[in-house]
Amino acid sequence: MKLASLPQGRDGRLIVVSDDLAWYADADHIVPTMQALLDDWDRFAPEVESLAIELSHEAIPRKRFHEREAAAPLPRAYQWADGSAYVNHVELVRRARGAELPESFWNDPLMYQGGSDDLRPGRSPIALADEAWGCDMEAEICVVTGDVPQGATRDEALKQVRLVGLVNDVSLRNLIPGELAKGFGFVQAKPATAFSPVFVTPDALGSAWRDGKLHHALQVDLNGKPFGRAEAGEECTFDFGILIAHLAKTRSVGAGSIIGSGTVSNRDPDGSPGRPVSAGGRGYSCIAEQRMVEQIASGEATTPFLRYGDTVRIEMRDDKGKSIFGAIEQEVVPL
Amino acid sequence: MKLASLPQGRDGRLIVVSDDLAWYADADHIVPTMQALLDDWDRFAPEVESLAIELSHEAIPRKRFHEREAAAPLPRAYQWADGSAYVNHVELVRRARGAELPESFWNDPLMYQGGSDDLRPGRSPIALADEAWGCDMEAEICVVTGDVPQGATRDEALKQVRLVGLVNDVSLRNLIPGELAKGFGFVQAKPATAFSPVFVTPDALGSAWRDGKLHHALQVDLNGKPFGRAEAGEECTFDFGILIAHLAKTRSVGAGSIIGSGTVSNRDPDGSPGRPVSAGGRGYSCIAEQRMVEQIASGEATTPFLRYGDTVRIEMRDDKGKSIFGAIEQEVVPL
Repeated sequence: MKLASLPQGRDGRLIVVSDDLAWYADADHIVPTMQALLDDWDRFAPEVESLAIELSHEAIPRKRFHEREAAAPLPRAYQWADGSAYVNHVELVRRARGAELPESFWNDPLMYQGGSDDLRPGRSPIALADEAWGCDMEAEICVVTGDVPQGATRDEALKQVRLVGLVNDVSLRNLIPGELAKGFGFVQAKPATAFSPVFVTPDALGSAWRDGKLHHALQVDLNGKPFGRAEAGEECTFDFGILIAHLAKTRSVGAGSIIGSGTVSNRDPDGSPGRPVSAGGRGYSCIAEQRMVEQIASGEATTPFLRYGDTVRIEMRDDKGKSIFGAIEQEVVPL
Repeated sequence: MKLASLPQGRDGRLIVVSDDLAWYADADHIVPTMQALLDDWDRFAPEVESLAIELSHEAIPRKRFHEREAAAPLPRAYQWADGSAYVNHVELVRRARGAELPESFWNDPLMYQGGSDDLRPGRSPIALADEAWGCDMEAEICVVTGDVPQGATRDEALKQVRLVGLVNDVSLRNLIPGELAKGFGFVQAKPATAFSPVFVTPDALGSAWRDGKLHHALQVDLNGKPFGRAEAGEECTFDFGILIAHLAKTRSVGAGSIIGSGTVSNRDPDGSPGRPVSAGGRGYSCIAEQRMVEQIASGEATTPFLRYGDTVRIEMRDDKGKSIFGAIEQEVVPL
């Protein structure tokens, strides 16, 4: 089933959305919010699932779903932890900073704890106080978990994946080096994160959800032009089971925790960092990667980071070309 | 007023507690949970405050308050961000790791984003899978905020302090160097954090709350013996207004966010790192500091990190010797 939240109070109200994202039915008479559903999944999910089936059969009154009216599926959450499953991205960004990639990064996931008190709708603007901070998108996959006990294995963790969605993990590139040097993770370099309008249960993704990974291309457009078409199921070094188990090694993970994949990234078939979409490659899911490749090719990064008025669009389509989660589409605006 | 939560569901139920921590009255008929109170403070706080006054006048039915039955005041929160206001601590711990303290650390606070999906009661055990991880306490002050807009100044941020409490920011010392080297902050090195049974409004702290700092000694006992008596109001380089504003520089901070001071730490009057309580000093709020001082004195750290069966107690007393927040008292147990 596909779920979303419409704006109401601080936590939204739960709705079920049709497969084609055209229609919705209220679900808040069953359970008021997405967090409350996740808190008591076994109790409420079957009834919400039945509602989704009735919606698909047009057996109940339905209303027009407009992506741009949706809140973030979880307008706030008790946890947002973002991994770096695509080590190619990590290697490129490190090279752009002149830093080496330690060998351990291929076995031990990078993960940072992000702010989860203000999760933004897919169509919210990026309110940026200073263009000089170097604003960048990071297009990613995310999952939402049930309760995961401390010390859970990869397989146990994977069973707790309740929902799958898309993320724009907005980053302020020019604030990252200073925070990295402090070693305490990102506080100022990672402003509010935005989510796809719709989150989807793994079973509704069919065979595209397998091995703890999502197997479709992630479409990233910048100012209306294709910027990234990386395959999320390829070169994903750490599946979501591994990422969640990493987080749960020393503490339990509560229901409604959101875990990110890190920026989706593919190499070129020849092993090089990848070419822009305009040059026949799969492009990039963030600007930093493109700048790195430019630096290698010409000695100078020419693509600027996001500026006021720029628009980023992130979407994923199924084999029939239909949008799965709805689109994240954010314009950068002055604070 | 003094507030606490009794166990109920995932978020507890709100009670008001008498100044002497001996009595309580249910407050959940006004607003069910502490988070709900924080979400709508201006609406509910006056009525909860009236209830607290009636409790103090014994004008309403009252029940015995037992600290050990309390849940964490916020059993889960949308944000837990821990600063390092006591730069003396940072300097000592860095020296213990053989690392220099950059000059910027005196102007730019360290802060890490912690897990907030499982906040533990003051009397919960520390469930540790492996003693070799080097479990340590970190005794700290924390505040809980209302809504703080992106870009708020120190003064604006300070006005949003709703509640004050104590924290044991449990740390796994032997996992820290690896995570620090990765630069992404602490995911595994910081297991579940525990909180004092009671949180207190700033006005109820009287003159002890001033300049964005709490001016009392923080009592830390290890296995029943005094371990730390550092003054929380002294050598606090960054007050809570500065810490919150640091967090809010690039994004808004939501109601119910918990901000920690970092380990409370004082130097000795002669400027040296400080002596143990048993040697007439103010001691330490974590074991790592004592080990550092031992290393300076004898070339070897002899105090071990926490082992199964060890008990840590953290408390703060007012000028009359009365416990303000109740005690955090945690025994380390095998997972």
